[in-house]
Amino acid sequence: MSSMWGSRIRISVFGESHGQAIGVVIDGLPAGVKLDLELISQEMKRRRPGYSELTTARREEDRVDILSGFFQGTTTGTPLTAVILNTNTKSKDYEAIKDLMRPSHADYTGHIKYMSFNDYRGGGHFSGRLTAPLVFAGAIAKQMLKEKNITIGGHIQSIADVDDSSFNPVSIEPLLLKELAKKEFCVIDDSKGQQMKEQILKAKAENDSVGGIIEAAIVNLPAGAGDPIFNAVESTLAQLLFSIPAVKGVEFGRGFAISRMKGSEANDQMFIDNGQIGFFTNNNGGILGGIATGMPVVFRVAVKPTPSIGRSQKTVDIAKQINTTIEIQGRHDPCIVPRVLPVIEAAAALATLELLGG
Amino acid sequence: MSSMWGSRIRISVFGESHGQAIGVVIDGLPAGVKLDLELISQEMKRRRPGYSELTTARREEDRVDILSGFFQGTTTGTPLTAVILNTNTKSKDYEAIKDLMRPSHADYTGHIKYMSFNDYRGGGHFSGRLTAPLVFAGAIAKQMLKEKNITIGGHIQSIADVDDSSFNPVSIEPLLLKELAKKEFCVIDDSKGQQMKEQILKAKAENDSVGGIIEAAIVNLPAGAGDPIFNAVESTLAQLLFSIPAVKGVEFGRGFAISRMKGSEANDQMFIDNGQIGFFTNNNGGILGGIATGMPVVFRVAVKPTPSIGRSQKTVDIAKQINTTIEIQGRHDPCIVPRVLPVIEAAAALATLELLGG
Amino acid sequence: MSSMWGSRIRISVFGESHGQAIGVVIDGLPAGVKLDLELISQEMKRRRPGYSELTTARREEDRVDILSGFFQGTTTGTPLTAVILNTNTKSKDYEAIKDLMRPSHADYTGHIKYMSFNDYRGGGHFSGRLTAPLVFAGAIAKQMLKEKNITIGGHIQSIADVDDSSFNPVSIEPLLLKELAKKEFCVIDDSKGQQMKEQILKAKAENDSVGGIIEAAIVNLPAGAGDPIFNAVESTLAQLLFSIPAVKGVEFGRGFAISRMKGSEANDQMFIDNGQIGFFTNNNGGILGGIATGMPVVFRVAVKPTPSIGRSQKTVDIAKQINTTIEIQGRHDPCIVPRVLPVIEAAAALATLELLGG
Amino acid sequence: MSSMWGSRIRISVFGESHGQAIGVVIDGLPAGVKLDLELISQEMKRRRPGYSELTTARREEDRVDILSGFFQGTTTGTPLTAVILNTNTKSKDYEAIKDLMRPSHADYTGHIKYMSFNDYRGGGHFSGRLTAPLVFAGAIAKQMLKEKNITIGGHIQSIADVDDSSFNPVSIEPLLLKELAKKEFCVIDDSKGQQMKEQILKAKAENDSVGGIIEAAIVNLPAGAGDPIFNAVESTLAQLLFSIPAVKGVEFGRGFAISRMKGSEANDQMFIDNGQIGFFTNNNGGILGGIATGMPVVFRVAVKPTPSIGRSQKTVDIAKQINTTIEIQGRHDPCIVPRVLPVIEAAAALATLELLGG
Repeated sequence: MSSMWGSRIRISVFGESHGQAIGVVIDGLPAGVKLDLELISQEMKRRRPGYSELTTARREEDRVDILSGFFQGTTTGTPLTAVILNTNTKSKDYEAIKDLMRPSHADYTGHIKYMSFNDYRGGGHFSGRLTAPLVFAGAIAKQMLKEKNITIGGHIQSIADVDDSSFNPVSIEPLLLKELAKKEFCVIDDSKGQQMKEQILKAKAENDSVGGIIEAAIVNLPAGAGDPIFNAVESTLAQLLFSIPAVKGVEFGRGFAISRMKGSEANDQMFIDNGQIGFFTNNNGGILGGIATGMPVVFRVAVKPTPSIGRSQKTVDIAKQINTTIEIQGRHDPCIVPRVLPVIEAAAALATLELLGG
Repeated sequence: MSSMWGSRIRISVFGESHGQAIGVVIDGLPAGVKLDLELISQEMKRRRPGYSELTTARREEDRVDILSGFFQGTTTGTPLTAVILNTNTKSKDYEAIKDLMRPSHADYTGHIKYMSFNDYRGGGHFSGRLTAPLVFAGAIAKQMLKEKNITIGGHIQSIADVDDSSFNPVSIEPLLLKELAKKEFCVIDDSKGQQMKEQILKAKAENDSVGGIIEAAIVNLPAGAGDPIFNAVESTLAQLLFSIPAVKGVEFGRGFAISRMKGSEANDQMFIDNGQIGFFTNNNGGILGGIATGMPVVFRVAVKPTPSIGRSQKTVDIAKQINTTIEIQGRHDPCIVPRVLPVIEAAAALATLELLGG
Repeated sequence: MSSMWGSRIRISVFGESHGQAIGVVIDGLPAGVKLDLELISQEMKRRRPGYSELTTARREEDRVDILSGFFQGTTTGTPLTAVILNTNTKSKDYEAIKDLMRPSHADYTGHIKYMSFNDYRGGGHFSGRLTAPLVFAGAIAKQMLKEKNITIGGHIQSIADVDDSSFNPVSIEPLLLKELAKKEFCVIDDSKGQQMKEQILKAKAENDSVGGIIEAAIVNLPAGAGDPIFNAVESTLAQLLFSIPAVKGVEFGRGFAISRMKGSEANDQMFIDNGQIGFFTNNNGGILGGIATGMPVVFRVAVKPTPSIGRSQKTVDIAKQINTTIEIQGRHDPCIVPRVLPVIEAAAALATLELLGG
Repeated sequence: MSSMWGSRIRISVFGESHGQAIGVVIDGLPAGVKLDLELISQEMKRRRPGYSELTTARREEDRVDILSGFFQGTTTGTPLTAVILNTNTKSKDYEAIKDLMRPSHADYTGHIKYMSFNDYRGGGHFSGRLTAPLVFAGAIAKQMLKEKNITIGGHIQSIADVDDSSFNPVSIEPLLLKELAKKEFCVIDDSKGQQMKEQILKAKAENDSVGGIIEAAIVNLPAGAGDPIFNAVESTLAQLLFSIPAVKGVEFGRGFAISRMKGSEANDQMFIDNGQIGFFTNNNGGILGGIATGMPVVFRVAVKPTPSIGRSQKTVDIAKQINTTIEIQGRHDPCIVPRVLPVIEAAAALATLELLGG
């Protein structure tokens, strides 16, 4: 049971990087949602590689075919299935190195789990490419949330050791999130963005890679969303966020930093003003007892540097059972953080739909 | 669907802090497990309050009654139910403040979610007390994992700004984990532990509280455990870990720090020695592509400072709809980190069972 | 995953016939349901043995203790747990015959599945006694359905070869169902009931047993309830109904008889009258394409004769691995159909809640 | 959550009769299953229409494209997705009658559930065509079961009022099931089959339709398979069987007839012979307490007559809200029982895999 998720809205993701197609079945959508194909296409484009010198030169069209659940421009209420054919695949690149375990990839774990039957080409089912159907599903979720006045967005908080400003957790304007989504490089402070890009290009020039942190927010999630214990807002979001390749940490509100604060500093004190209840601070990231407080749900996600680098690395030939080295050729992102951002937003949108009961 | 979890092994947690009882149903245990009641009792004791000046003076016996699934000393294979009666409850303490929303507690979110029907006494179903049945279930899981040679343990990595040493992620001795479990205050370096305790007592004296970070590990999880995407090792663990009250961050391997490393530093290069495959480093915390590599699974959890503090805090009277202040009286932990540690271990043990297929 | 069910409302049933207790956790109930303890008690009593010469002389009080999820007379919205202590148990009766596999009981299958760890006393977790918590949960479901104007009820359609009248499937009065529920022996035609009782007493006198058929209905289930394919109204109901011990067949509408009808006879033709859509017949039992039509959902359930009989039967001693015979002593129902009826209704009520989305 | 099923092996069925495609995602298959494409194709052909005067003249090629989870001739262990493009669709046939609710079809319930967004063409997601992906998934399941020596098969027990012989439930030869599967018209006694065909052709000539009963068996299901209560063998099978369009009844063993037997007749007495435990009879259909006994699991399924008939029927125009009549034109099966048989077998195969733990 690897690739199905959700109880109120359910997604079933399938495909391998170099197989015939990747895709997703989404079950539990209401009937009558007029799909905003423009928005979907925009979100797909944000994730798509090949459109900037910062990302891989590998171009993927990522054209989505909707096979079911969509009739005369709207959802039918029955499972919506979307398929993306794999076109620009160069599987032969992988034939040569199929026995060499690329460090920090899933080559070795896939081999152990599925033995010789693992589809090794381009990471197979473990490929970052599998996030494309997630972004598609997330775009529909975003559209549905918009009708409930809920906005989800994020920005690149850091690349390598360059940090951008943070959100003000007490008050995040939906407009800011929308403007960020339109940026080609999603940072709050563009001069910091410039420095980040330099870090990426420097890593690229050195046949190396860099990682970063993404900060994102769900604005206007109604107080009361989420359930205690296992379906806490944090639990539901974290399960999906950690399903995204390269994510190694997730924190809410002040996150790890809250562990160094005193209770008197960390506690979000409350007030009432004109019948409206508010919080002076939002150190808990809009979640108490696993339930939304109505404040922005703020979280940060750590993304590791791209494992595929051109430098020589020590590894193992799994067939010959010998030590060897590998220099990964081909078209790889020196930094995947910008492309992970829309995936994070998509995952958050799907989790939010689930928290709201589908 | 708030309080049931798992697909291969399933737990259903119930109860409120001041209700008649709390407990858990565990479904999916195999028949014939001779319960190690000694181990269970030990784990329960590690979580139990009232046995140190560092914790609350509130004593709870936490005597577990097994109502089903247990016959002649072993599990029967049918659902095992354990109940802990609530005895040392002083519900009247809560009567007086039931309309005052304690900052950073679930009082407000519980009120919004369940309206006037919320059991406000001592946090109700949101109470940290609900982790007792989790520790019980985790103790059984630990015992079952021991038979598969898998050891789970952890230590207090930091309290306030005092940091202990970290695990060496490449090689964690099961013996170390066992010794840590026996300590009254689980730190690697006892002199650091002394400083931590001072921080806790200082906070207590100031009517304040402190938080901390817990580092834990699953040792000898077989390579291949876990599933791609939604049932990744990280996803499964994180969902459960974020179900524990006060947890605000979870990271694996180098976690957030990996975002500042280069690919060439972060990648875990590999070798083969005498037919045995190994990794020079373990920055990915024993997980690649969501699947266990066979290296120790290392993770860290951020715990916020106890919200209940004696200082005056601004809040709202939800019935009168006015601004007011609250000074929380009663028996509260100035720091819950030491008591959260066995809960983290229990959650990890249950998640591990699930990853292994029950 | 044996004993948990549901996705919108979830129940977790636990216990063994002669263990410490049996019970149920119900998750997903809304907050604020004022439990009608009178109704619950009445439903429990309908299932309870020992109150008529037609049933076993074994008296069970079946006193329900609510351990959680219930505060100040209403549900809290968090898991509601109910426990029934096992009191009138005579486990020694079973010690003597523990190796003799009672024919048509779960003794042999329980032994194979759980080996020597199976709780053999009184059928253990397989016991019909486990339907008591189901009736409890069903009573709450019935109460919630009543507020939506949905009524569930049934009658004994046949005992041995004595048949009662059937419901008129096109129009079943809620009042009829309520009156049936009050009857000590739930038949439409009491003279038929008299003949049925004679059959039961005759079987009892002969140390034998009889079975029967129960017909039940869900009245005013709104058109549109249910989902296509796997969560069809039939699928959801049947899964629960077949979970009840002794049930060997389930049919909807005309059921097996529809297989001998022509399309032109079987099809439920439609009309509109004063803006109200109706059906001339209801051969499909209120379900088309798995979805409720708004007509009464009518179904029938086949119940086998009680397996426990006093006559000598050929069986096996599983320890000695020899052929032998068994004459089952003790207090057994010559016919369980009357006591299964409230269980069928309870299962239908829970399934209906699930179909309506909890 | 309409169209996903299973916990150990999971299937997600999608598509509409006249949409772009129908298909299925199967999650939880082990890696390394060499797909027997011949067997799959054979099973698909058994269900496919247009190849006999007994079925509809509508020809569907039902060519399956495997999009994922299949590499170099074997399963990869990741989700296997199969798609069947809809080719021979004449959607215009449905344009004219889209507001006329075809009696005993899902037109009305689909309209109520999904409003005007329902894909009305050919039944949409409710179409019997959705059983094609089920047969595909079932063929893989059958192949996997074959390796465990488990055989599933069935026959047409009755059409209209013509009855064939029944299986001998105590001993069903796998060879018999294999021979039945090869028959163009699956009956035990071909002379009865001839009479059945005559009934079908007679109904066809009269613009009418007939139904029937299918008897099927799972042979060599190991004793101990299944779980008590909600995942009983009966519960798991029945949920899937009732997901098949036109099924209105399911019974196990003697089914409804057992309700008229005495305990002394119905009980399956046991013996041991040469260390092998056996049953003299199999009235319980190979299931006791929800768990397999090791005897053949025998069940019968009632299939209603095809709702699409050429005769004039009273119905409603849902747009105009008036009474009217409909004569359904087009290419329809006068009897779907022969084509439902392989679907029943497929569902049984998938349920069996689930019962065995995937």
